[in-house]
Amino acid sequence: MSEIMKIAAAAKKDSFRMAALTETQRNNALARIAAALDRTRDAVTAENRRDLAAAEAAGLPDPIIKRLKFDDRKLDDVIEGIRELIALPDPIGRILSRRQLDEGLILEQLTCPIGVIGVIFESRPDALVQIATLCLKSGNCAVLKGGSEAFHTNRILADEVARACQNEDAEIPKGFLTLLETREDIADLLKCDESIDLIIPRGSNAFVKYIMDNSNIPVMGHSDGICHVYVDKTADLEKAVPIIVDSKTQYVAACNTTETILIHRDIAAALLPKLRNALQEKNVLIHATAQVRDILSDAAASAPAALLPAAEENFRTEYLDYIVNIKIVDSIDEAIDHINEYGSHHTDCIITEDATAAEEFMQLVDSAGVYQNCSTRFADGFRYGLGAEVGISTGKLHARGPVGLEGLETYKYRLYGSGQIVEDYAEGRKSFHFKEFTI
Amino acid sequence: MSEIMKIAAAAKKDSFRMAALTETQRNNALARIAAALDRTRDAVTAENRRDLAAAEAAGLPDPIIKRLKFDDRKLDDVIEGIRELIALPDPIGRILSRRQLDEGLILEQLTCPIGVIGVIFESRPDALVQIATLCLKSGNCAVLKGGSEAFHTNRILADEVARACQNEDAEIPKGFLTLLETREDIADLLKCDESIDLIIPRGSNAFVKYIMDNSNIPVMGHSDGICHVYVDKTADLEKAVPIIVDSKTQYVAACNTTETILIHRDIAAALLPKLRNALQEKNVLIHATAQVRDILSDAAASAPAALLPAAEENFRTEYLDYIVNIKIVDSIDEAIDHINEYGSHHTDCIITEDATAAEEFMQLVDSAGVYQNCSTRFADGFRYGLGAEVGISTGKLHARGPVGLEGLETYKYRLYGSGQIVEDYAEGRKSFHFKEFTI
Repeated sequence: MSEIMKIAAAAKKDSFRMAALTETQRNNALARIAAALDRTRDAVTAENRRDLAAAEAAGLPDPIIKRLKFDDRKLDDVIEGIRELIALPDPIGRILSRRQLDEGLILEQLTCPIGVIGVIFESRPDALVQIATLCLKSGNCAVLKGGSEAFHTNRILADEVARACQNEDAEIPKGFLTLLETREDIADLLKCDESIDLIIPRGSNAFVKYIMDNSNIPVMGHSDGICHVYVDKTADLEKAVPIIVDSKTQYVAACNTTETILIHRDIAAALLPKLRNALQEKNVLIHATAQVRDILSDAAASAPAALLPAAEENFRTEYLDYIVNIKIVDSIDEAIDHINEYGSHHTDCIITEDATAAEEFMQLVDSAGVYQNCSTRFADGFRYGLGAEVGISTGKLHARGPVGLEGLETYKYRLYGSGQIVEDYAEGRKSFHFKEFTI
Repeated sequence: MSEIMKIAAAAKKDSFRMAALTETQRNNALARIAAALDRTRDAVTAENRRDLAAAEAAGLPDPIIKRLKFDDRKLDDVIEGIRELIALPDPIGRILSRRQLDEGLILEQLTCPIGVIGVIFESRPDALVQIATLCLKSGNCAVLKGGSEAFHTNRILADEVARACQNEDAEIPKGFLTLLETREDIADLLKCDESIDLIIPRGSNAFVKYIMDNSNIPVMGHSDGICHVYVDKTADLEKAVPIIVDSKTQYVAACNTTETILIHRDIAAALLPKLRNALQEKNVLIHATAQVRDILSDAAASAPAALLPAAEENFRTEYLDYIVNIKIVDSIDEAIDHINEYGSHHTDCIITEDATAAEEFMQLVDSAGVYQNCSTRFADGFRYGLGAEVGISTGKLHARGPVGLEGLETYKYRLYGSGQIVEDYAEGRKSFHFKEFTI
């Protein structure tokens, strides 16, 4: 048994006590964490400067250094996030159904924590605090592995969180939080299917796929984010252009950013010139099908920037950049087929004033989020009003789309009897009297 | 691309239309299936007699031949099951939450089918009809592989179901139902992670484990079923004995049958002699710890049947037979620890008159079903009032315990906007106004 397996097994054991903590115990611990981070901000930012210095010395790219930075302002955000988390309703013990099976035999289905959650996350140290506190609020034990660039920051943050959880009554089990520190630990972690109930990988597509392919532990997350905006023939062009520009450019590196725009043939000539101008103003490179290029060369009053061709491969690419595909379709059905074929079942939008078309699109597009007349960038736990977010799932089981606290809970059935045995029902001496209670 | 991959890809394509069928379309098709089975009962039973003759010629064991038999009575049950399924509420389009994010920006979370379900099932031909109709009611496409002993029966049943689904309007997509007929098909099926959304394996533990280990497709089901009854010190012995006998002997081959009985030290001397007599009356072989054997040899008035020793290995064994382990524990905590360590997180029961002890047990035992004062044999979709059942899950994600129609649904988020873009919120020109609608 590897060291990591022992750690995971200990976390599993502690997870049962973790699940039985009261809301007050969990919220009090969260408040102690917020206070501890506030109290030790000098030490935390000092450790972060060590990581930053090392990253700069190693010549790491600017975006990574930006994500790595953990200053007073980010600490304020993290502390504010914990206060908001405390205010969220308790996700544990929510009654999903209550049913009488027969007199004196009452079945309750209620939410409870999943157990031990393994999270492998990128180089943002704020992610460590967010994930640890989400696990605490939801009654789960957390085994975390952060980006190695944030080694010193992660270590002090994990220490502070763990220490703040310990009060004189030792309410929070020691196994609540474990920080893994080496890349080799990940391979061991993936083997802990006896102890780890769920892995949430955050990072590049290739990394998420590696995790999915190399573990029997269920994985919650997403690999590709290939989102679409389809402009229907009844679209309001005044809405279409800003929605497309926002869906593409508001933050290009996100998974909910649009990569392909589909346009109904009947509206293409009216929309395309305006759309090209708006996108090129934002320096978006356009891959367009032949039909699109034809319309735009006709419409070209002033010399337009060159349009690149759009091939099969482009429609399967998550650019994460200022690049977009544009394609004309003959019908809403062709748009739906394209999205189901080339998309990643993440978030797709129809621009239309026709409620029937919107309904058809929402029924038939097989994605976690189906939108009408708004930006695909809304696909996010905070914007959905879920409060905190652990990630976005493009899987269909358990949780789909942005996942909040609810996605960190499972349920169990409690059956309260007074001596009932199955033999009586099997032999016809008794029969079931199902009665649903309103909850 | 293998033949199976092509079939699965076609089913995937059809699954989008399948998901958009109305409740009436699905229920009408179910009614046509019931009528078709009733009409063709002679042909169905004739095909079944071919399978039975082959099974007898091959010398297959009696229990298999019994499961294989599909006579008029079983056909009646299956038809009655379809009528009950029609009467169940529609699982699709149930609104789970509805929230205003801002004025004119409304988020709805509603249930929808998972897509394509692969089910590999045992030699009972009634399972084919049950699973196919469950998939139809829940709006999913089904790729089925039945036991090879039931080859002819499965083929005619699948043909009848598929044909009954086709009416003049061709509402139900052709890809709704596929029957695989060879064992080699299973290996190909497990590779279809692009098309198959969920696999439900029914069969032996070894088989379920094989499936889990050899596919990236999510699996819903259970391998072991090691259930416990714990008799607390405050137990009512009048309840304890019949509950234990029922939990062990009502049907020994089921996953919800109890394999180990834990008894609080304080009540052991009073309970054990009665319990031994009751179990031995049912010819249950007892593996007992040394403490149990001591008490029973003291209490032995007449010559008792020999008790076998209970070793570590016994506590990890799913007997599926008239065999049980009995162990004495010093406390409820020891019982809980034993169950979490040796159990399979399926269904476990405490016998107690003490509500606080029951609460502690239900909180801390990490199982899909936690019971007080009733038989573990109640863990079953029908007995839970779920109507039909696709199986019992000991996984913690998605569905847990007996799984009915609800477990064949996922959800999607619909976001209805009127031109909203994220930039406005990111730049502070607008802010979210979350408002929860009651549903």
